[in-house]
Amino acid sequence: MRCEIIAIGTELLLGQIIDTNSSWMGGQLALAGIDSYYQTKVGDNQARMVESLRLALSRSDAVICCGGLGPTQDDITREAIADVMGVKLVRHDWIADHIRTMFEQRGREMAPSNLRQADVPEGATPIKEMPGTAPGLICPIGQQVVYAVPGVPHEMRTMLEGTVLPDLKQRAGVTSVIKSRVLRTWGYTESGLADLLADRITDLDESGGATIAFQASGIEGIKVRVTTKGEDTESVDGRLALEEQHLRELIGDYIFGIDDETMESVILKLLRARGQSLAVAEGLTAGIAGSRLAAIENASDTFRGSLLTDQPDIRQRLLGLSADLPPISAESAEALAVGVRQHFAADFGIAATGYDGRTDVHEDHKPGTVFLALATKDTVHSAKVILPGDRNRIRQYAVISLFNLLRRHLLDIRSPAVL
Amino acid sequence: MRCEIIAIGTELLLGQIIDTNSSWMGGQLALAGIDSYYQTKVGDNQARMVESLRLALSRSDAVICCGGLGPTQDDITREAIADVMGVKLVRHDWIADHIRTMFEQRGREMAPSNLRQADVPEGATPIKEMPGTAPGLICPIGQQVVYAVPGVPHEMRTMLEGTVLPDLKQRAGVTSVIKSRVLRTWGYTESGLADLLADRITDLDESGGATIAFQASGIEGIKVRVTTKGEDTESVDGRLALEEQHLRELIGDYIFGIDDETMESVILKLLRARGQSLAVAEGLTAGIAGSRLAAIENASDTFRGSLLTDQPDIRQRLLGLSADLPPISAESAEALAVGVRQHFAADFGIAATGYDGRTDVHEDHKPGTVFLALATKDTVHSAKVILPGDRNRIRQYAVISLFNLLRRHLLDIRSPAVL
Repeated sequence: MRCEIIAIGTELLLGQIIDTNSSWMGGQLALAGIDSYYQTKVGDNQARMVESLRLALSRSDAVICCGGLGPTQDDITREAIADVMGVKLVRHDWIADHIRTMFEQRGREMAPSNLRQADVPEGATPIKEMPGTAPGLICPIGQQVVYAVPGVPHEMRTMLEGTVLPDLKQRAGVTSVIKSRVLRTWGYTESGLADLLADRITDLDESGGATIAFQASGIEGIKVRVTTKGEDTESVDGRLALEEQHLRELIGDYIFGIDDETMESVILKLLRARGQSLAVAEGLTAGIAGSRLAAIENASDTFRGSLLTDQPDIRQRLLGLSADLPPISAESAEALAVGVRQHFAADFGIAATGYDGRTDVHEDHKPGTVFLALATKDTVHSAKVILPGDRNRIRQYAVISLFNLLRRHLLDIRSPAVL
Repeated sequence: MRCEIIAIGTELLLGQIIDTNSSWMGGQLALAGIDSYYQTKVGDNQARMVESLRLALSRSDAVICCGGLGPTQDDITREAIADVMGVKLVRHDWIADHIRTMFEQRGREMAPSNLRQADVPEGATPIKEMPGTAPGLICPIGQQVVYAVPGVPHEMRTMLEGTVLPDLKQRAGVTSVIKSRVLRTWGYTESGLADLLADRITDLDESGGATIAFQASGIEGIKVRVTTKGEDTESVDGRLALEEQHLRELIGDYIFGIDDETMESVILKLLRARGQSLAVAEGLTAGIAGSRLAAIENASDTFRGSLLTDQPDIRQRLLGLSADLPPISAESAEALAVGVRQHFAADFGIAATGYDGRTDVHEDHKPGTVFLALATKDTVHSAKVILPGDRNRIRQYAVISLFNLLRRHLLDIRSPAVL
């Protein structure tokens, strides 16, 4: 089973938007065991869209078209598919009702052009998931199929996971299962991990049991992805579990989470289990720590709040930071952690100070020098790290390192912290 | 002159790397006045690379191949191009010497496989820029041309700017210039804008003076992009300025910025010009407002800080929010705005309360109901909006709408606010 992807939009060709959708879809197809040999970007031009579709159908069994399903005049994916199918567009009542209802629920006027989105190629079926006003489509052409999904990433993903991938797998009669598991780490560099796991990777290359890949992902940590293939879910899950165990022996407690677990979800879960709470003083971390925590479902059970400010007068008045302390120092980070813990009446307070490459800074620190501090009811301690990268990267690394300081405390980890 | 781009690498198809190179090259081609109608990703497979090259040459004058020029066995771009040219690979002495010298300069041993990179299709010329060990190539095929550049972004960019783009422009005899300008709006929906500008778009389609495209970009607003082409930079700039004026007459003060200006950069700039400052109370907006503001260069000149918390006791103690007020209401939003203004001793305080789809919520509000409030020294006022989308989208729209409330106040805008 081969499936091509056609990403539609002149703005993609002009580089105004980077086509991340095709990359995500390519990854999903690979995990579903479906080959994808070509991925094409084409502009909002009907003749060229039709040519690309015909070419794709000449060499693949299925095509996913992404984009061009909006209500405006340059959204012509529906027309192009109808052309290739040799059919007309017909108004689809279910979709039209759905769009009307969405506008009513929002208490907004529906522009007449919105109903263009309900015009679909004759014979096409709407994809049942419809998180926005753009309907996805399943368009059969003989034994082949063209899917149309919107270019809005979350809408595309919902439709791919809910309908397109299951439909493709069923058509392909896919029985082999490919699965992967991500071990998220913090503490080793990417090349440090590669060295640590070199022998294991060589063994796996020879036995063909699994593949291992690394991915440095900023605030998400450095990911170690294990992928394996087998007859059924059970055997694949068993192999993944075994390999995870091998890798845990090598990497140890630098592994902080699995798959979608982020550092912040891990610390909030640990806090919830203990009935304890957290507060954050932000400055260097520029609000990133608070927004990462608040994005977690039910964060407010354990996350008491964060105070974001760079102003010395406010830090002094609200958090009790003495004006005498050097702003970038272990002492200041500790004072902020203690102060913010009290400000929000939390069990733990955390804070970072540091040099993120801006100019208003002490000369005696290297770029990327960051002091991380953690205050409990009775204690306060801090750690100094030197983080690589530009300002944005230093901030992100500071946030995950700060959260990791709390994780290590909560789990009583005593191995040396590298980052 | 048409130029296609072929990005080469199985890791691109699998989504392990996002193809940002093609996007950047597409933007550069557009600015050079060269059309690029197709961009393709293909894996490290010689037959499919050859097929893609032949197809590209059947419909374009030039092709840029990006990637697959390294020393390892899966780097086969050289072989694929030689196949299409119908020639052999020959060792190129200048390149071989260059690679040897680079290794010597870095004090590293050269693996014999590295000299594979000096084998080029007979008749090909090396690109003079060579920042790494992978040489770029100019491969003439009759009146057409295939360029090969490495996938390492900075190496690719150096070669494109230094050789490929000038060579393409010379071949094309290009004298024309293409430029675009983005008007960022907030207040109309995408389809509302399309309706508003429909006549203007029709006029432009007929006159060919410019093209207009829309892009809904979440917290970045809804973008209206005008693109135009002309003999020289001056005439193009003049046409863009004229078209901007036309669109401003239609869209009015719903336009908040141009090109890279964000809503937060606009309000901080307005505040700076007045020597005034801002504080934010966050809850519904989940720290997004503070982190957007803090990410702006020199934000701390005008952004006093933000307090992020969902805890009623803290809001009561720190911001003076009465426990008697319904948490999701205009009154609560106003009280938070007043409280946070005082907490941070700022000129303006802003805050939002609302229903973002979570469960702990009043039943008498529709999903997406948000109350936005702005407090000044002497006044406080609020606005109710109903925002579409999932939780994350509602939060993002709440943030840009909240910033817009302040922008409208600072500019004394009295037209009705739609969002």
